[in-house]
Amino acid sequence: MMTKDYSRLKINPQRFQSNFKALSQIGATTAGGVNRPAFSEAHLFARAWFREQILRSGLEFYMDGAANHSGVFRSSKANALTLLLGSHLDSVPHGGRFDGALGVLAALEVLQTVQESHIDLPYNLEAIDFTDEEGLLHGDFGSSALTGSLKTEELSSINGGTERLSFCLSLFGKSPEDLLSARRDPTALAGYLELHIEQGSRLKNSGIPIGIVTAIVGVGSYRIKFIGRADHAGTTSMQERRDAAQGAAAFIQAVRQLVIRDYPDSVANVVWLKTYPEALNIVPAEVELGLEFRSPDSPKLRELERALLALAKSAAQQSGLGLEMISMSLHEPIQTSEQMQELIRTTAHQMGFSTLDLISGAWHDAQMLAPICPTGMIFIPSENGSHSPLENADWNDCVRGANVLLQAALQASLT
Amino acid sequence: MMTKDYSRLKINPQRFQSNFKALSQIGATTAGGVNRPAFSEAHLFARAWFREQILRSGLEFYMDGAANHSGVFRSSKANALTLLLGSHLDSVPHGGRFDGALGVLAALEVLQTVQESHIDLPYNLEAIDFTDEEGLLHGDFGSSALTGSLKTEELSSINGGTERLSFCLSLFGKSPEDLLSARRDPTALAGYLELHIEQGSRLKNSGIPIGIVTAIVGVGSYRIKFIGRADHAGTTSMQERRDAAQGAAAFIQAVRQLVIRDYPDSVANVVWLKTYPEALNIVPAEVELGLEFRSPDSPKLRELERALLALAKSAAQQSGLGLEMISMSLHEPIQTSEQMQELIRTTAHQMGFSTLDLISGAWHDAQMLAPICPTGMIFIPSENGSHSPLENADWNDCVRGANVLLQAALQASLT
Repeated sequence: MMTKDYSRLKINPQRFQSNFKALSQIGATTAGGVNRPAFSEAHLFARAWFREQILRSGLEFYMDGAANHSGVFRSSKANALTLLLGSHLDSVPHGGRFDGALGVLAALEVLQTVQESHIDLPYNLEAIDFTDEEGLLHGDFGSSALTGSLKTEELSSINGGTERLSFCLSLFGKSPEDLLSARRDPTALAGYLELHIEQGSRLKNSGIPIGIVTAIVGVGSYRIKFIGRADHAGTTSMQERRDAAQGAAAFIQAVRQLVIRDYPDSVANVVWLKTYPEALNIVPAEVELGLEFRSPDSPKLRELERALLALAKSAAQQSGLGLEMISMSLHEPIQTSEQMQELIRTTAHQMGFSTLDLISGAWHDAQMLAPICPTGMIFIPSENGSHSPLENADWNDCVRGANVLLQAALQASLT
Repeated sequence: MMTKDYSRLKINPQRFQSNFKALSQIGATTAGGVNRPAFSEAHLFARAWFREQILRSGLEFYMDGAANHSGVFRSSKANALTLLLGSHLDSVPHGGRFDGALGVLAALEVLQTVQESHIDLPYNLEAIDFTDEEGLLHGDFGSSALTGSLKTEELSSINGGTERLSFCLSLFGKSPEDLLSARRDPTALAGYLELHIEQGSRLKNSGIPIGIVTAIVGVGSYRIKFIGRADHAGTTSMQERRDAAQGAAAFIQAVRQLVIRDYPDSVANVVWLKTYPEALNIVPAEVELGLEFRSPDSPKLRELERALLALAKSAAQQSGLGLEMISMSLHEPIQTSEQMQELIRTTAHQMGFSTLDLISGAWHDAQMLAPICPTGMIFIPSENGSHSPLENADWNDCVRGANVLLQAALQASLT
């Protein structure tokens, strides 16, 4: 095994790019991105396309009980562990071409390159496309099922309920009962590596081609309802009103001010979900907001949570409004494996690429894998954020990232 | 005609109240109000009930091309003019029991009382229930058609388009072509009188039972869109964001501050209509607001309009956002007839009721009638605003108002 020196082996950049172009056509939007929410027609088509590439390459295709799609390149070694490489093919509604898709294609490209080079590794390589990372049903749905962190009791609180869950899984011939079977034995996993665009501007701004993710922020979310009174908007004086929109607007502004002033490492986002009644001649009686907040360490996440809820209370109080707050989710921050960080650093430096240690502000399947096996993430520079049709990455950076993934996968046994 | 002195004639308070209770059951909500939007099942049922009362009383029933429903008590005089008394039976979604309904029932009660007393007036009395005052299709739909202010060219811009218009009218066996026939010859109208709850607290607070409406405020409305950029809410720093919600929230708060500070006679209402994309992990790229503003005189209405648009521009600018503003409607303030004001004042004082001159902050069918015939409005005290299930009026005040309407209708020829 691995008798030759493969440290100069590279992926096939033409095939990688042609695959990227083909995949970007599936669910393509006129805005230049893709619209491939999990379980949509475009998502199903993208997964069918992925499966076809796997089978055509002579790799083994495998789908687990959570409908995660995998291509497998087996080691000749008996009872070999598996090194997972992957990401996801679903997008947010009207999202971009790179988020998730790049990592799945790079994983596929690594397996194809290793196979063509007839390399026999001491572990299986598995290129995995996780189901519903973006959380149509549940954030990191497929990776949660694989790691066993999606509990049976959570299934009833899934977005859209169990009927929707059943329907979505049935699209892949699976049922909620199959979900448990997706759980992998952690001792059979050698680790997990994921290539992803940064979705931020630190690499781009610093001119460094490879980011090494040291931690992924924790994320919490709430539904917050401000409750006033429906009054005639022509006959009720401004002073008499209990306008739910005033409290909500004050909260939206205060959240931004608080985070900028007191939590420079954290972020928060407020999305206005509902006004009731929705009539121009009625003072809004109820406004429902969605709040999401992220922080890189656990105590700060809790502190930020408390500060945000206090803001909502004070905004409601100052506008004479009632308030309801429901916690929707809370995911703790995680650290990636130092061994995997070092592996990525070493291989990148071997290729002459400088690296930057980064904390990921976004949620990834890696967050689910980190607690059960050595997990590493490689970021490449991107621009125009992400979850947007405008998200973009330089193709040379994508190739550099895929080559680092390849070399990290090849050298994982040496660490 | 009118040889006897009927100045002490009163309506039948038991019948009036029993009718009010019966009508309040139609579309009744558990919150204590009614949900009778125009063309809903409850609205159709309420109008069928009204028609039945008209026919049972031996009054003449009449429906015009805009589906306005009328009961008519004819004068024996040849070519008699018609004095219209009325309001509307539709409510806003989840509205209250009094707004509109009280005026229609009082008009019906007046006709029944006059008929029972065998009074031959020198003009016809018509109790009219105007179609869709609350503006499901178009504000003051029925009264606009009757007065000829609803123009053929406006029909294509009706809420929901011409297909919905056709469907709604077909529920009453009418079509858009019939609308023109609803137009009345202004020279055939002796005037219009409407009884309504104040929908504000000035009468209630002052303890005065009868309000005389001297003017109805003008109303304008806009759709305002703040345009930012969809970014990943985890990876984009607060400083980098172009968050459409920030501009919209700043605008909502600034509108309230401006009106309270500089336009004490005016009001404005902002309703959040849409966030795009509506995902917690994406920074809002677009927010659409509805803005409505009201002012008692024309120059102030224009000045307020300019000041509000300037606020939106400055809110967008300060958050680095684009802006689109579309004018949806502008209705000029109107004055009621001085002759009708004096008629209401005199009859109320004859009955020993003190009166208060008021400007109506709400839109009424009277606004449409005022330009074409002598128009007067009687307000009675109410509480908890209106357009709300909580709107309420003391039943004794309702009876006082109906008696003033009766006497004003009887004495209209003397003015």
